[in-house]
Amino acid sequence: MFNQLGLIGCGLMGGSFALALKRAGLVKRVVGYSKSPSTTVRARKLGVIDLEAESALLAVSGADIVLIAVPVAATENTFKAIRHLVEPGVLVMDVGSTKRDVVDAARRVLRERVPSFVPAHPIAGKEAAGIQHADAALFSGRQVILTPIAQTDADLVQRATDVWSAIGAQVLKMTPENHDAAFAAVSHLPHLLAFAYFSAIAHQPAGRDYLSLAGPGFRDFTRIAASDPAVWRDILVANREEVLKQSQRFRHALDALEHVMRSGNAEALEDLIRGAAEGRASWQMGAPRGSGTR
Amino acid sequence: MFNQLGLIGCGLMGGSFALALKRAGLVKRVVGYSKSPSTTVRARKLGVIDLEAESALLAVSGADIVLIAVPVAATENTFKAIRHLVEPGVLVMDVGSTKRDVVDAARRVLRERVPSFVPAHPIAGKEAAGIQHADAALFSGRQVILTPIAQTDADLVQRATDVWSAIGAQVLKMTPENHDAAFAAVSHLPHLLAFAYFSAIAHQPAGRDYLSLAGPGFRDFTRIAASDPAVWRDILVANREEVLKQSQRFRHALDALEHVMRSGNAEALEDLIRGAAEGRASWQMGAPRGSGTR
Repeated sequence: MFNQLGLIGCGLMGGSFALALKRAGLVKRVVGYSKSPSTTVRARKLGVIDLEAESALLAVSGADIVLIAVPVAATENTFKAIRHLVEPGVLVMDVGSTKRDVVDAARRVLRERVPSFVPAHPIAGKEAAGIQHADAALFSGRQVILTPIAQTDADLVQRATDVWSAIGAQVLKMTPENHDAAFAAVSHLPHLLAFAYFSAIAHQPAGRDYLSLAGPGFRDFTRIAASDPAVWRDILVANREEVLKQSQRFRHALDALEHVMRSGNAEALEDLIRGAAEGRASWQMGAPRGSGTR
Repeated sequence: MFNQLGLIGCGLMGGSFALALKRAGLVKRVVGYSKSPSTTVRARKLGVIDLEAESALLAVSGADIVLIAVPVAATENTFKAIRHLVEPGVLVMDVGSTKRDVVDAARRVLRERVPSFVPAHPIAGKEAAGIQHADAALFSGRQVILTPIAQTDADLVQRATDVWSAIGAQVLKMTPENHDAAFAAVSHLPHLLAFAYFSAIAHQPAGRDYLSLAGPGFRDFTRIAASDPAVWRDILVANREEVLKQSQRFRHALDALEHVMRSGNAEALEDLIRGAAEGRASWQMGAPRGSGTR
């Protein structure tokens, strides 16, 4: 049980976390701050936060748990804004989709206060951003990755684990490096490919006509292309090394498929497709690590 | 109203067409043939067909409407098997996802009987193949593309339009060439990319661990990677020229995104992402041609 959640960034992720803690009876009071005052007012009117703070620092004042839910590129400035009030024993978390850059920023800015920071990445979201879509059930049944470093306070890692578990999430721990490599593969690259694919279709002469013919396969394949541009700009810049490595692997796989298409080797093409199709058919979201797909 | 549907290929597409015609009261009797006798028996037991035929030719005998619902690569042999019983006035359609190859095969094989053949491509399907997934509502609210050629009997094109409309589909007419170019862009390329992407993830050393971390974005992006390997082998070989052209456009768009990622030009990256994100957000499946997305 916490006395006060200091919420920095009243958007979908932050708002959903506040609602989930309230619903689970895990927090007495939520003090919220957003860069845009109208968002903060809206969050209060929606009952997501109880009090508006005029700065990130004031949102942290008196809090025993702090969630930084801002675009990844704004995390470092948030650390700078709040560092003077990050007392030992205060649990500070973020929700960023990349972790090496956030951990580097925490080391640089928080310095001797870095043990309070437990880097977190909840694998949850919606295309629709904004406080009006905040949902107390957003994290229920979803994975949350914690990426503590050597200096991180072990008690706070345990408290972080407990609070995410209490709102229905499954908690995993990884190094920031392994996290970024894994999410480059399963999340960041698909977004990059979806952006590239949609652009390629839309920008050709007959693109509008083509789009009018697209069906359910197209709809699902391109759903993530509608994601928030500022969020994905930050993620793709922050994790570009790993994303570019994964893109190279993808290009090799595409080359292999195109090669057998060009040569008209239908049997080899079917084998390549079958490998992917059987793997995908046996994959299940949230299956335990190492089980499921070959 | 038809007296007898000759159904060649008792799978998801053919079975759904038979069920839809029955439900709409458009056919008195369905005679079905499948390469595998056990499938034909199953189709009869499920009530999809009324009578089993021992050959494709026997399924056509006495039929006034014929649906060829076999893998694209098997279409030419099916034409050969049935051509002697394709009488003038009998409406023969296929359901293939590529049309130039089917039209070429029809010209070659059906010759003077080619006017009976109205090439059709219903934009509908499920990942789950097989007669057990046949669904009378599969085509309801979906588009069906007809690609008649100069020799095609105009009355039969009208009958084809009427029957698809009567089971709830929206009928569009295009040339086979325009059809194949459009579907390379909005359907065949996304499948190719999804196969390549899933293969690239699954075949790397940490692939199993990565797959256990994948979330809803990955799930939707890769859904079409679980499609039927034999069907997609045929489509990607039959339409390879157009698919490879579209793949080149896609690679250029991917190059452009990677270039701005590498150069760290966050603003340019955001602009590229925003173009795709806004286009996708304003896209609606089945919107009238030329409306919607820029």
